[in-house]
Amino acid sequence: MAGNTFGTSFRLTTFGESHGPAIGGIIDGCPAGLAIDANIILHDLNRRRPGQSMITTQRNEPDTFEILSGIYEGVTTGAPIAFQIENQDHRPSDYDDMKTAYRPSHADFTYDQKFGHRDHRGSGRASARETAARVFAGSIARQLLNYYGITVQAFVSAVGPIKLKNDYDADLTKIESNIVRCPDDAVANEMIAYIEKLKKEGDTTGGVISCIIKGMLVGLGEPVFDKLHADLGKAMLSINAVHGFEYGSGFAGSAMTGSEHNDVFKNENGKIVTTTNNSGGIQGGISNGMDIAFRTAFKPVSTLMKEQETVNKEGQKVSLKAGGRHDACVVPRAVPIVEAMAALVIADHLLRDRNSKLVYQS
Amino acid sequence: MAGNTFGTSFRLTTFGESHGPAIGGIIDGCPAGLAIDANIILHDLNRRRPGQSMITTQRNEPDTFEILSGIYEGVTTGAPIAFQIENQDHRPSDYDDMKTAYRPSHADFTYDQKFGHRDHRGSGRASARETAARVFAGSIARQLLNYYGITVQAFVSAVGPIKLKNDYDADLTKIESNIVRCPDDAVANEMIAYIEKLKKEGDTTGGVISCIIKGMLVGLGEPVFDKLHADLGKAMLSINAVHGFEYGSGFAGSAMTGSEHNDVFKNENGKIVTTTNNSGGIQGGISNGMDIAFRTAFKPVSTLMKEQETVNKEGQKVSLKAGGRHDACVVPRAVPIVEAMAALVIADHLLRDRNSKLVYQS
Amino acid sequence: MAGNTFGTSFRLTTFGESHGPAIGGIIDGCPAGLAIDANIILHDLNRRRPGQSMITTQRNEPDTFEILSGIYEGVTTGAPIAFQIENQDHRPSDYDDMKTAYRPSHADFTYDQKFGHRDHRGSGRASARETAARVFAGSIARQLLNYYGITVQAFVSAVGPIKLKNDYDADLTKIESNIVRCPDDAVANEMIAYIEKLKKEGDTTGGVISCIIKGMLVGLGEPVFDKLHADLGKAMLSINAVHGFEYGSGFAGSAMTGSEHNDVFKNENGKIVTTTNNSGGIQGGISNGMDIAFRTAFKPVSTLMKEQETVNKEGQKVSLKAGGRHDACVVPRAVPIVEAMAALVIADHLLRDRNSKLVYQS
Amino acid sequence: MAGNTFGTSFRLTTFGESHGPAIGGIIDGCPAGLAIDANIILHDLNRRRPGQSMITTQRNEPDTFEILSGIYEGVTTGAPIAFQIENQDHRPSDYDDMKTAYRPSHADFTYDQKFGHRDHRGSGRASARETAARVFAGSIARQLLNYYGITVQAFVSAVGPIKLKNDYDADLTKIESNIVRCPDDAVANEMIAYIEKLKKEGDTTGGVISCIIKGMLVGLGEPVFDKLHADLGKAMLSINAVHGFEYGSGFAGSAMTGSEHNDVFKNENGKIVTTTNNSGGIQGGISNGMDIAFRTAFKPVSTLMKEQETVNKEGQKVSLKAGGRHDACVVPRAVPIVEAMAALVIADHLLRDRNSKLVYQS
Repeated sequence: MAGNTFGTSFRLTTFGESHGPAIGGIIDGCPAGLAIDANIILHDLNRRRPGQSMITTQRNEPDTFEILSGIYEGVTTGAPIAFQIENQDHRPSDYDDMKTAYRPSHADFTYDQKFGHRDHRGSGRASARETAARVFAGSIARQLLNYYGITVQAFVSAVGPIKLKNDYDADLTKIESNIVRCPDDAVANEMIAYIEKLKKEGDTTGGVISCIIKGMLVGLGEPVFDKLHADLGKAMLSINAVHGFEYGSGFAGSAMTGSEHNDVFKNENGKIVTTTNNSGGIQGGISNGMDIAFRTAFKPVSTLMKEQETVNKEGQKVSLKAGGRHDACVVPRAVPIVEAMAALVIADHLLRDRNSKLVYQS
Repeated sequence: MAGNTFGTSFRLTTFGESHGPAIGGIIDGCPAGLAIDANIILHDLNRRRPGQSMITTQRNEPDTFEILSGIYEGVTTGAPIAFQIENQDHRPSDYDDMKTAYRPSHADFTYDQKFGHRDHRGSGRASARETAARVFAGSIARQLLNYYGITVQAFVSAVGPIKLKNDYDADLTKIESNIVRCPDDAVANEMIAYIEKLKKEGDTTGGVISCIIKGMLVGLGEPVFDKLHADLGKAMLSINAVHGFEYGSGFAGSAMTGSEHNDVFKNENGKIVTTTNNSGGIQGGISNGMDIAFRTAFKPVSTLMKEQETVNKEGQKVSLKAGGRHDACVVPRAVPIVEAMAALVIADHLLRDRNSKLVYQS
Repeated sequence: MAGNTFGTSFRLTTFGESHGPAIGGIIDGCPAGLAIDANIILHDLNRRRPGQSMITTQRNEPDTFEILSGIYEGVTTGAPIAFQIENQDHRPSDYDDMKTAYRPSHADFTYDQKFGHRDHRGSGRASARETAARVFAGSIARQLLNYYGITVQAFVSAVGPIKLKNDYDADLTKIESNIVRCPDDAVANEMIAYIEKLKKEGDTTGGVISCIIKGMLVGLGEPVFDKLHADLGKAMLSINAVHGFEYGSGFAGSAMTGSEHNDVFKNENGKIVTTTNNSGGIQGGISNGMDIAFRTAFKPVSTLMKEQETVNKEGQKVSLKAGGRHDACVVPRAVPIVEAMAALVIADHLLRDRNSKLVYQS
Repeated sequence: MAGNTFGTSFRLTTFGESHGPAIGGIIDGCPAGLAIDANIILHDLNRRRPGQSMITTQRNEPDTFEILSGIYEGVTTGAPIAFQIENQDHRPSDYDDMKTAYRPSHADFTYDQKFGHRDHRGSGRASARETAARVFAGSIARQLLNYYGITVQAFVSAVGPIKLKNDYDADLTKIESNIVRCPDDAVANEMIAYIEKLKKEGDTTGGVISCIIKGMLVGLGEPVFDKLHADLGKAMLSINAVHGFEYGSGFAGSAMTGSEHNDVFKNENGKIVTTTNNSGGIQGGISNGMDIAFRTAFKPVSTLMKEQETVNKEGQKVSLKAGGRHDACVVPRAVPIVEAMAALVIADHLLRDRNSKLVYQS
């Protein structure tokens, strides 16, 4: 069984390779009657696209999309929503020298072994271009969540060794105030300088994205396997280059004692809340109404502008150096992808939860 | 849609609460013709059960199981494998004082909100008792993997602030040489001393489990959402108390440069391998034949043997202190659970991969 | 991927072979808060079991069941409902002479080919014994439907060549008034006489079961593949020995003209209904609130009490004659199975429908 | 959960409404390495399209398609295959007078109730236009089956009261010899005359399609719910206007005795076959290698060219008469749809079966 579908009740199936005519997808399960603003979708796509700032690749690929079904006069109909985003900037020639070589830490070797061939024009299905379809769908999910008062916001909390402290307390209004999407201008400037330095060296770096979900409904998440954070984790780990996920106290929490870590309940004007949020808004795999907080770790970009050793399909030693234009750090552009995948998970669980209790509803 | 099923081709559905008559499950999709050794299952269950050493709870709950279908004369038949594990030690009274109070950082509050009630006899479905069914099923999966020469081994690499360095290079033959399941006796002794100290204080700690999968087939993992590490991550995050997952270079990899991080391919006697393994055996979401390596972070146990503040169902302030017997650190007992969930994921993807290329097979 | 799970939101996974210790299953997705009456379950199981009347086999197999989880103090908890029904009457010896022969029109040959072996003790997973688990689960589904005022009733409308005319207008209060479960005593007597005649001859017959679902909610069924009647059809065809399914006008409707066949809408006290019901309560795959009406055709029982020619595993000609006790007509006993599968489909679609429109529900 | 996905291992998700810009779908799970002939797809689409003969509607809608991904240089890549078929002939005006009226035996009323609105431009998602996407996908599945030597052929065996006798023995080479797709010219002429008569009267008729699958592998079908005929039945019943399904002996088999009905096994040159085929090629839900044979019943077209009574959304009595061009009998055009859905089911089960037995395959 192939794996191009995500979610159960709010379900996205995607298609498309970086060098084909288009990428896109079908969303099945979006309820009828939801007003969709195409400008919000465009805004989200623009935040992901290359060429948006001097630290990202200068490829000019404005993501224009077409909705083929499921939305009529701006409102969802309950039918599947099909969309496609044209690929405008095919340049197979950029990759010609990589036709036979397996690029280090890319999917060339594994795709070749699994499918009996690989897309020598680029990375085929393994290209980050695929994530544009996720951003589109996530934007629909986000608009569903807005209806319930839920917001999803992500930002860059680390670039290489440069880290934002107390990320979960960041000022979310400042995310878009700089090109690196770090809500602290001083730290952002350090990050930008670091990226520019690496760029000059033909090298790359990774980073971390933190995400906060506010206005959560209580009760989302399905025991025992589809815990809310388990599905968030899978969503994040399915994004290209992600090597780690943690929520709430995360890895650091493993070093704490139980008495430090436990989140004490209190009654705040009739609402039960916790005084701390080491649980990251999720207890027993189910949202408790506090903010959901998690982090996603990205490895450095594999495509380097410097010579690298590798082997080709025949196992012969070769060296290669990327041509074309590539990001030295994709993390700022991955912010809307993290938000999109998070929105897809929350929307899916919001719909899934409707059957947990007996309710008379026809 | 509820969430008690895991996997697609090798699929486990579990049932059972800590204080009901039994827990268990059904495995659907295990191929016919596999010889199953019940002693291996028993051995795996025993490694998980309470009371196995002085650092674990002394509850006496020997996990005896019954196989109800799907295995005949020691060999799988292709029919669903149903199994159940009796609950022998119900003691609802242990929990009486918690009937109305929401225990901090437990699932009491969220279950109550989601399902309109909660199991006041214990933690119901949120109990770690549920993981015994995972260990049983994982043991069947592990025996399927053995047939292909794949082994899954996990061990404790951190307890609270005490960490094993270079965990991915650990001597896997030493995992069971001490009660804390850390393959370095000196570090293990520190961990044991730390756990015993906390136990005396009525406090608890978390920890980290590392896992290595050897003998991997190349090509397992399904783009773009069911990447092998995305499913491993979900599997781990679905285990009680897990707050984080990373594979290969993980969070630390985010601080590296691309030229440090990339795994260079080389030809080793006709086999294409990588010189380093920052990819943790997975590239583009597909196994590359190198060892799979990942870590799972557990938060401290929430149940403390010391007084804690909280609120009850009515929102009134109350304090509670656990009676009964509870682990100060569950991480050593979680080692077979991590192995079980990892085995389920690899078995599932092994079966899923059979359809990736055109092969004449009836 | 194996196929022992039915449904998506209200989901049943079954296990068990006729000659193992037990059969049973797990229901995942039943909402919390539903009161369950065990006597209704027992009543449904008794209607299916052998030995209930002189026209059925005299095997004494009272279906006593155990509920292992998911129901506490008579109310569903939202956790998976696991149940098992003991097999009390194993008699492998009945089948000894069939060990190597492929019984005509049984699953012996196909199971052997598919799984590399077959259960020589009986029919293994292909045994009609498996349907007891369906009846159990259907009884839970039926109790969920009762809460919404929906009733599912089936009856025998044909045994061999003897047919009940105008079955969709039958008096449903008379179904249990005779042992053949045909709501017309005169026709029932003919049916009983025909079955007894065949029984004496060692021969068997098939028949047809009609089913009426009243009190339907409008709007159940999911375009375009999971049309309500498509899922009902699959449910019926998955029952042993079923060779056909039709709803509303069915096969006869193919010979009608559109002007005869169309169901005209009218306003009946503010409720939109149709004057005729050739649509069988389903239009465009979605329930329209009229009674759902369908028929299921069963082939004759394959096990004969007379000598039959066949081949064995080696392809050698052999002849065989069944020992033991077998029904000459299973159709009366299949009535609760048809009801159970129908109830599972309606319950599943009732839950699935909750997400079709935007509704503010947390 | 919505229902626009069909199949598990070879999986089709469709989108599109009759009056939107395009319809189409995504196939996920087609193995890599399969050569695809676009002309076969075009041929299949042409057999379904309107305007192909004097007995079908004259709407001019040549189904030109575009493949957006998953096929490169004529060979499948293992990536999802996305395709779209443009809608060229939107004429919302044809339907203006039906804007508020619920057309009898259409999906107008039920869609309105379920989704809170309906597509007043036509039938939206309930339009038979949707089946073009099925034919496209079925053509890919058919090419996969060809690789294994399996062929799927359907034909018209009844139009209104005119029936082809012994349909399962029909000469399959003659299916395309006449415009009604009945492989007996004399019967075909009667059918054509009957359709033309009804057309003049503004009336319509239904019919039956029979289907034969040759070259079947033994062992396809998954006990106990996903029996091969259960999935075939669901596939057929999901096609617009289908009211019934039977395989092998079908409804007529219910009137036979077991001794007449049983298919005796024999050894034919080392291959085990049956002398008769009342089982329709499927025993215990698993293919036995004999031809698969089934029938699908279509109700008469609901859209009449004569005045009909109905009510509108407000429940007021109105009358309506269709404008535009509509088929008096869609059954001949449904032949490729039946073949497509059958091919999808067999391809799906062929892939699903690969995991039934332990096989060493990486």
